[in-house]
Amino acid sequence: MAEVSIIGAGSWGTALAVLLHKNGHKVTVWSIMEQEIEMLKETREHKDKLPGVKLPEDMTFTTDLRAAINGKDVLVLAVPSPYTRSTSHMMKEYVAEGQIIVDVAKGIEENTLMTLSQIIEDEIPQATVAVLSGPSHAEEVGRGIPTTIVVGAHKKETAEYLQNLFMNEVFRVYISPDVLGIELGAALKNVVALAAGIADGLGYGDNTKAALITRGITEISRLGMAMGGRFETFSGLTGIGDLIVTCASMHSRNRRAGILIGKGYTMEEAMEEVKMVVEGVYSAKAAIALAHKYDVQLPIIEQVNEVLFSGKPADVAVKELMIRDKKLESAFSEGWE
Amino acid sequence: MAEVSIIGAGSWGTALAVLLHKNGHKVTVWSIMEQEIEMLKETREHKDKLPGVKLPEDMTFTTDLRAAINGKDVLVLAVPSPYTRSTSHMMKEYVAEGQIIVDVAKGIEENTLMTLSQIIEDEIPQATVAVLSGPSHAEEVGRGIPTTIVVGAHKKETAEYLQNLFMNEVFRVYISPDVLGIELGAALKNVVALAAGIADGLGYGDNTKAALITRGITEISRLGMAMGGRFETFSGLTGIGDLIVTCASMHSRNRRAGILIGKGYTMEEAMEEVKMVVEGVYSAKAAIALAHKYDVQLPIIEQVNEVLFSGKPADVAVKELMIRDKKLESAFSEGWE
Repeated sequence: MAEVSIIGAGSWGTALAVLLHKNGHKVTVWSIMEQEIEMLKETREHKDKLPGVKLPEDMTFTTDLRAAINGKDVLVLAVPSPYTRSTSHMMKEYVAEGQIIVDVAKGIEENTLMTLSQIIEDEIPQATVAVLSGPSHAEEVGRGIPTTIVVGAHKKETAEYLQNLFMNEVFRVYISPDVLGIELGAALKNVVALAAGIADGLGYGDNTKAALITRGITEISRLGMAMGGRFETFSGLTGIGDLIVTCASMHSRNRRAGILIGKGYTMEEAMEEVKMVVEGVYSAKAAIALAHKYDVQLPIIEQVNEVLFSGKPADVAVKELMIRDKKLESAFSEGWE
Repeated sequence: MAEVSIIGAGSWGTALAVLLHKNGHKVTVWSIMEQEIEMLKETREHKDKLPGVKLPEDMTFTTDLRAAINGKDVLVLAVPSPYTRSTSHMMKEYVAEGQIIVDVAKGIEENTLMTLSQIIEDEIPQATVAVLSGPSHAEEVGRGIPTTIVVGAHKKETAEYLQNLFMNEVFRVYISPDVLGIELGAALKNVVALAAGIADGLGYGDNTKAALITRGITEISRLGMAMGGRFETFSGLTGIGDLIVTCASMHSRNRRAGILIGKGYTMEEAMEEVKMVVEGVYSAKAAIALAHKYDVQLPIIEQVNEVLFSGKPADVAVKELMIRDKKLESAFSEGWE
């Protein structure tokens, strides 16, 4: 049995709290919001974020960050990506040398182009940072639906420890050393989800969507490999696997915003209609900045940017993608005669 | 302008005939069935196979195989996979030295474990054989929906010639030397579609399906690479791309049969209900035979075989997949410390 704290009581944090409790661990959930913690203590259910999932009586809820961190074996950082830096900054003074922090959010910081684990390492250099990512709707994990996921860590020992902590008969955990590849795939896939939504909005079919998903992940791989990630990671659960879940889901904000843009809404109108942060819009910008930095061509992601930020009609963007230079499918074909 | 014959007037053959005619080529369609050819000549529409798509007046229809082959620049072989050998056998005496045959069907011959291009090369050694594959519902190609596809050929010259022949502003053609990888991915993906259907039938969610799709293509890659295919091909349009289209489609027989099996039907009951050949059932057998031959582990495909042929309950199979040995996500992690 381990002592674990979940930092952030959103749907994913809450689902992981329930999972870890079922696995026999002692679980504390921290939130910055007094009201949320009081509600969780009283009702033992997160009605907004994870309705229908009972939170056990011996799960602890607190707003005391020091108490949530002190002496814990593992800290699961589950705050939304825009709060990763500020929360890490608050956590720093309480985190012990070598204490494990597993980040379970996804994103790239706009101004620094850092991944979330890089932000945590930047703010809390004494921590041992790992990541957990994969195709996993929180509501399905909360209901015990069979799910697979990947833990990435710099040391195999850390990864194996976390694999044992999280794994059970409905939650299969694979491990990988490719922390960067995991984080890049997870963050950038939303741009492709947006593109797939745009194709749906234009009334195109399954052929077009499968093309955008497959060639989109190829672009992300190309960028990710230039940055040091592994091709296999982008073809795995945290890359294409997570993208498949996103594109199949009616709940994906990225997909819904894309559908509206495909129907002729501007990016601002679509964001207003969806009424939530559409991560793919920010990731699209970050991807282009990274592409310039690493000198990589990203034709689909470039067209998404032109549609989002330069008012290019979506059907014109698709046509330009279809008729550009005739290509090899993969770089390995280059010596072919 | 080239002279092209389509051998086989199914939905895919007919859609490609229309595409090639639009590209300015002189197109002949051959079928072994007098009745079908008469119907096509008279109605200029394939009402059963590709309804709503007009066949132009200057497209030729014939049952004369010699006339369909003699002097043509390209032969598109579009008969269903069980007829590839017998049709190739009939074609042999008319095919000229070096004449190009593009196979557009998918499958593995059960008793020989040969791919379709290998069968054609076996029957017609004088032909130059290529393949065309990717995420492409025929009805969407018939309607001009943007589609991407891959042409595989042993010589780059052949692939580039075919890329120019087929490509237009709604049909983007990539080229690849990995003929074997293209064919293996296309044939074996139906086993994974069956597994994804079974998960749907069991009432599992998007997490489970994404896991089966992603880990399923990983298994196919592992087998395909042992046989000489390239990892990138299985992660590309003809592998995961085609699988995504299959798993998204309500029309997929493999998916529908899988759903019934997940709900408790036996394989025979499911096949009877679907009333058509469920290719994944045969591919599942072929995959296991190949796995033994090349000494590769395929846990998902093994469980599919046990459910299909040994009466193992589907939920037990899923549970066994979830709790087996703790693994690395990818082979590249093996040196990790």
